[in-house]
Amino acid sequence: MGKVLVFGHKNPDTDSITAAISYAYLKQQLGMDAEAVRLGSISGETAYALGQFGFEAPRLIEKAAPEVQQVILVDHNEKQQSVDDLNDVQVIEVVDHHRIANFETSDPLYYRAEPVGCTATILNKLYKEHGVEIPKNIAGLMLSAIISDSLLFKSPTFTEEDRMAAEELAAIADVDAQVYGLEMLKAGADLSGKSLEELVSLDAKEFTMGAAKVEIAQVNAIEVDDVMKRQAEIEVLLNSIIEEKELDLFLFVVTDILNNDSSVIALGRAAERACTAFNVGLTNNTATFKGVVSRKKQIVPVLTEALK
Amino acid sequence: MGKVLVFGHKNPDTDSITAAISYAYLKQQLGMDAEAVRLGSISGETAYALGQFGFEAPRLIEKAAPEVQQVILVDHNEKQQSVDDLNDVQVIEVVDHHRIANFETSDPLYYRAEPVGCTATILNKLYKEHGVEIPKNIAGLMLSAIISDSLLFKSPTFTEEDRMAAEELAAIADVDAQVYGLEMLKAGADLSGKSLEELVSLDAKEFTMGAAKVEIAQVNAIEVDDVMKRQAEIEVLLNSIIEEKELDLFLFVVTDILNNDSSVIALGRAAERACTAFNVGLTNNTATFKGVVSRKKQIVPVLTEALK
Repeated sequence: MGKVLVFGHKNPDTDSITAAISYAYLKQQLGMDAEAVRLGSISGETAYALGQFGFEAPRLIEKAAPEVQQVILVDHNEKQQSVDDLNDVQVIEVVDHHRIANFETSDPLYYRAEPVGCTATILNKLYKEHGVEIPKNIAGLMLSAIISDSLLFKSPTFTEEDRMAAEELAAIADVDAQVYGLEMLKAGADLSGKSLEELVSLDAKEFTMGAAKVEIAQVNAIEVDDVMKRQAEIEVLLNSIIEEKELDLFLFVVTDILNNDSSVIALGRAAERACTAFNVGLTNNTATFKGVVSRKKQIVPVLTEALK
Repeated sequence: MGKVLVFGHKNPDTDSITAAISYAYLKQQLGMDAEAVRLGSISGETAYALGQFGFEAPRLIEKAAPEVQQVILVDHNEKQQSVDDLNDVQVIEVVDHHRIANFETSDPLYYRAEPVGCTATILNKLYKEHGVEIPKNIAGLMLSAIISDSLLFKSPTFTEEDRMAAEELAAIADVDAQVYGLEMLKAGADLSGKSLEELVSLDAKEFTMGAAKVEIAQVNAIEVDDVMKRQAEIEVLLNSIIEEKELDLFLFVVTDILNNDSSVIALGRAAERACTAFNVGLTNNTATFKGVVSRKKQIVPVLTEALK
């Protein structure tokens, strides 16, 4: 078996980057020539986590072939969220915590998904199942992923299994999760110095829902108004993306990490239907989703149901 | 959470039936109201295994809803192999050892696939991971599944992990795997008393390969010629199924369980292409695939590649 690349989704978040590093390390310990790589830019939050635990960002790739024939996906499975030439390589493993869609293989594979809040929680189990000790700095990365995906343990995606994993990892990493976590989230919510292009693409994901093509971008913020007051410029950008990708809906979600509400800008022919599904009206293309912080658990299922 | 039905694929083989029983039992021990059911008739081989270990056949269902809202799939994931109303219920778990295709969910789920020869091998791990003891009679069923899927440990799908699981399960079940296994396979290969309709449907599975709709039926036999001499009648049946389901290919595979070759009848517009992929010519719609016993590992990947 030749080298295997391990990567998370495009527009990688902290879980995608750290899961690639953490799982590649585990596979190396088990004898595989595995290398963690990434499919996009590192966010401010992820850069903070990598820096705190002494890691460099993984190498950026645009294509997997012909460098390798085999890849491992972490933190995603949907083809449109993955490397562009996914069809040219063999997916031999997936470790993920999302719904399964637009994913198909010719051969049997190792697929491990669990309905938990973070890939790191599953990786924590896999280390145990294989009897491999988690190094201190990798535990720090895995803890960072759980903090990121759960908005410091407050998202409805956060399960009892995530809580136990976070406790174990914080102990190994020797970190106060609350203190460290708030600093990390603040680093990610610092939107100064971000261009609007970056804001709408940093954590954007595409979905197919029924016949509809949907893109949902999410940013965390401390001052939501600082983002929303640039609505006019943002709409120009979103409309150009809608046209270019022939989207039925672009949902731009700005999540207040302190009060846990999200302000959204919804554009595209499915925008009204989308907001109706959340029982809120769309005013001037915007709405507030009270208590909604999780794209995966609170937005994608509702939209999938509404648009199918 | 209400009752959850656990089932394997249509035209169930021994692994599908026994995995449903074995996993439903494990889930019951973990507190779930789980019931094993089946989507089709029990084969002679499976009936033998159930009888040996004191089990009745699970209840036959045609639809999952409205009886339940949630289901667990074992030994399959492709929609066309599953219950007809799969879209009306939520798949909360999958335990499988096949490729992933035509499978999609709205929500995150527990998905456990491993590239091993049998679902029972994965279930053996799950019992350990949850610290639940495998009862003697369930171990017998799980061993039966491994024997069935591996044609008594001879199929190329049979891995080191399957071998270890079979050893452990034989010890728990207190069974001589070779002696018991040959008797079980013979019970399954006894085709006397089977109608031709039963032969071509007993272990038939549908696949989508590229744009092609393919059905592959497999029977095990000791006297392959007893089946092949009825080719003319079989072809009439296959052609009517091709017409009814608008198939591009029907591959009827008769596997000699003693010498491990398969004789095939290939019909449909893709029949020539299919056999070319196996480097054999089609003579009078028939061919011999030397050393081919595994649909999953030796037939489906080759056809998928050839027809894509």
